[in-house]
Amino acid sequence: MLSEFDLIKEYFQRPQHATRAALGIGDDCALIAPTAGRQIAISSDMLVEGRHFFVGEDPQRLGHKALAVNLSDLAAMGARPVGFTLALALPSAERAWLQGFSQGLFALADAFNIELIGGDTTKGPLNICITVFGDVAPGRALRRSAARAGDDIWISGTLGDARLALAAYREELTLEDATLDAAGIRMHTPVPRVELGMLLAEQGIAHAAIDISDGLIGDLGHILTASQVGATLDVDALPAGDVLATREPALRRAFTAAGGDDYELCFTAPATARAAVLAAAASVATPVTRVGVIDAAPGLRLVDAAGAPLDLQLASFDHFTS
Amino acid sequence: MLSEFDLIKEYFQRPQHATRAALGIGDDCALIAPTAGRQIAISSDMLVEGRHFFVGEDPQRLGHKALAVNLSDLAAMGARPVGFTLALALPSAERAWLQGFSQGLFALADAFNIELIGGDTTKGPLNICITVFGDVAPGRALRRSAARAGDDIWISGTLGDARLALAAYREELTLEDATLDAAGIRMHTPVPRVELGMLLAEQGIAHAAIDISDGLIGDLGHILTASQVGATLDVDALPAGDVLATREPALRRAFTAAGGDDYELCFTAPATARAAVLAAAASVATPVTRVGVIDAAPGLRLVDAAGAPLDLQLASFDHFTS
Repeated sequence: MLSEFDLIKEYFQRPQHATRAALGIGDDCALIAPTAGRQIAISSDMLVEGRHFFVGEDPQRLGHKALAVNLSDLAAMGARPVGFTLALALPSAERAWLQGFSQGLFALADAFNIELIGGDTTKGPLNICITVFGDVAPGRALRRSAARAGDDIWISGTLGDARLALAAYREELTLEDATLDAAGIRMHTPVPRVELGMLLAEQGIAHAAIDISDGLIGDLGHILTASQVGATLDVDALPAGDVLATREPALRRAFTAAGGDDYELCFTAPATARAAVLAAAASVATPVTRVGVIDAAPGLRLVDAAGAPLDLQLASFDHFTS
Repeated sequence: MLSEFDLIKEYFQRPQHATRAALGIGDDCALIAPTAGRQIAISSDMLVEGRHFFVGEDPQRLGHKALAVNLSDLAAMGARPVGFTLALALPSAERAWLQGFSQGLFALADAFNIELIGGDTTKGPLNICITVFGDVAPGRALRRSAARAGDDIWISGTLGDARLALAAYREELTLEDATLDAAGIRMHTPVPRVELGMLLAEQGIAHAAIDISDGLIGDLGHILTASQVGATLDVDALPAGDVLATREPALRRAFTAAGGDDYELCFTAPATARAAVLAAAASVATPVTRVGVIDAAPGLRLVDAAGAPLDLQLASFDHFTS
């Protein structure tokens, strides 16, 4: 039977890559040598089977997603990824699962040139807890509290296809297989907007940012609360995913505004920075769309393309009340 | 009902203490400003209900222990604690549980002057994942690979009372209530040897160190493997806990040598450093005991007080084979 130490050795300990870690897996702690003059950004996300992913989820996709949602938090801060730890509870040590999971995990880690530097494995109900580290120049991090009245509100990429796929899996609506596969990619293998976040922070283009995980309205709400401002959001300007874009307007509005699992960036920037935002986005081949404006008056006002108020009755996802 | 955000606000977000964190809970990432010229030490531990602690465990003790086992990893590295993140999966948001857990957690955090800087909460089978950060001067960390032939092997504090309490809870043996309570303290509220570890590292006294979580023999084995050395261990010299010390020799040998859950330090230091080890230990009021010697020849030799070989057939704890 595969022991805890063999498991780590076979699936998670890799020949030391060129990495910023001074000491990786295999001691009581990992050691990293911080880059002089930069701050360390840290985020932890825990994924629970049956809650954040379906029972029996493909392990390779899961390895990708578990790291992607953490990298998305670094992206929202504008931080450069440095490394991550993985704590993993598994019902049993299954080779096929471990192989798939570690492949998905390391493929994404390699794409961002970061290394697994430590962690923990134990038996238990499937639970994946990743803590990710990045660095950022002092004063450059994109904080939720930094939005200012008059800022434009921007969204990277497109929204809602992940929520559409979830609706189909839950049989709330029907999608053809090929269509569901296309939407499902957005749910299963989100691509964190790391390069865009770094540019927006390092070049001092954006003010505030957050990544959209619980739905745009709820996540934008965190920026508004932290910044003590309000906003007007043009719901019809929200960029829908390719699959969702073919559906009826009511569904498009609901799933772009309050879908969740998008892992796109929502950020604010002064109107004078429009050309800089577009240039930065173009340089990393990431589409961005201007969808609203930050107001001095508190509250979030949803409007349609004509500027008329909308009352969508949308709620953000909450783990303990839903 | 208590929402995810209220839960964090009420139980885990505290008025900003004097802390080394530049930005704490409430953004996509926490930010820490590293102390110039020091490395960051990082460790993650995951505690699963029914595996690392009993179902229905007192939440205050659990809050203490979840952080203590992580601080113990910093101690084993000789790092100074800086802060930690907490990812928590809970079956439901119960106020009484959250209050007890956060009290136990923060009491220990305050004792070491560190702050909770971020994390995640979600619904799920009870699972506590803490990632702890410390810092240490480059080249001073107590690495598992640094033991040298001729080094003394030292143990802090005493061993085996936690394992004795576990045996009583499992009804493998019987203890009177008061005796079980005394032994149980070692299992439920271990005290990480942070100050000792920091002194041994900063003053360059010790070579290698590890904290004893899975049982001394197994954990010492990690030092031997990483350092490519062997050792001779005087099993009768192992310092037994107060309760275990009153029990029969066979039990004492088994539970000191391969008990687990001790969270004491096992470290190696050159024989020329004996006075320095004792002075450092005395200065932080931590007893230490010399229990063996590192050999050039591979393998671990267990001997009794007379130096005669012992064959104890002891195994270390493994999460996937036990």
